[in-house]
Amino acid sequence: MKDHASAHAIDTRLRSMPPVRTLDVQLHDYDGTALRLHAPLDRNINDKGSAFGGSLATVATLSAWGLASLKLHEAGHADVDVYVQDSTMQYLAPLYDDLVACATLAPEQDWADFTGTFAQRGKARARLQAELRCADGTLACRFEGRFVALAQR
Amino acid sequence: MKDHASAHAIDTRLRSMPPVRTLDVQLHDYDGTALRLHAPLDRNINDKGSAFGGSLATVATLSAWGLASLKLHEAGHADVDVYVQDSTMQYLAPLYDDLVACATLAPEQDWADFTGTFAQRGKARARLQAELRCADGTLACRFEGRFVALAQR
Repeated sequence: MKDHASAHAIDTRLRSMPPVRTLDVQLHDYDGTALRLHAPLDRNINDKGSAFGGSLATVATLSAWGLASLKLHEAGHADVDVYVQDSTMQYLAPLYDDLVACATLAPEQDWADFTGTFAQRGKARARLQAELRCADGTLACRFEGRFVALAQR
Repeated sequence: MKDHASAHAIDTRLRSMPPVRTLDVQLHDYDGTALRLHAPLDRNINDKGSAFGGSLATVATLSAWGLASLKLHEAGHADVDVYVQDSTMQYLAPLYDDLVACATLAPEQDWADFTGTFAQRGKARARLQAELRCADGTLACRFEGRFVALAQR
């Protein structure tokens, strides 16, 4: 963990949500650039024995949400609500392993812009991406989403 | 319910998935055109007291998946797997009520084409949409997704 206190704060906020607990989504690791969430297959399985589409979308969305929240927390902004505005999800291959979603900032975006804009205006937007891979490395899902951070009222 | 047996079969398949049971997603009603799924807010609440984004995406995706599955079942195709291929989700307003997703076929699509193509080739694609509204009628989320139906092997 790069910033243990910030990562812990985000994990605590994640686990405060009942559906996150019932699907058993947990922080896997964070290296300062990418944040990974994990959820076990058995809690998130569909009628075909592979990962349930709703859970794939959930874990992907949460990983990006978690990364944006974490970057704000690291920059000293703890009282921020991050909301997803819109997203696209591509389901490319069935996943028969545990769900691990890896979120990063979209290529043309910049964290310093995001946190700087938030510091100035109490509001900022960012585009993030996430992917889930099978254990053999095959890309199973690709997510992209736009998020907005708002100072808590 | 328009076709009680088909709707019951889809509800049974829905409830066979552990995450659907833990989020308590249930068939609400089906009038032959629109299928609605319901999930209680308390099981699907986020850290802001509104409906959790992952659950909104889950219920929207499942409602469209359920409607495509139901249309095939009604047409006599029981052994079909329907998969979501890609989707977009817009989060327009926070939802503080139970989640009710209403799925319909996308405007320029035709169910007879879909079931006819499936009968002929054992494979067919359709585009569906879904929305979730607040109790006062405000549009909370808009979903669109492409689905493919494949004969079970």
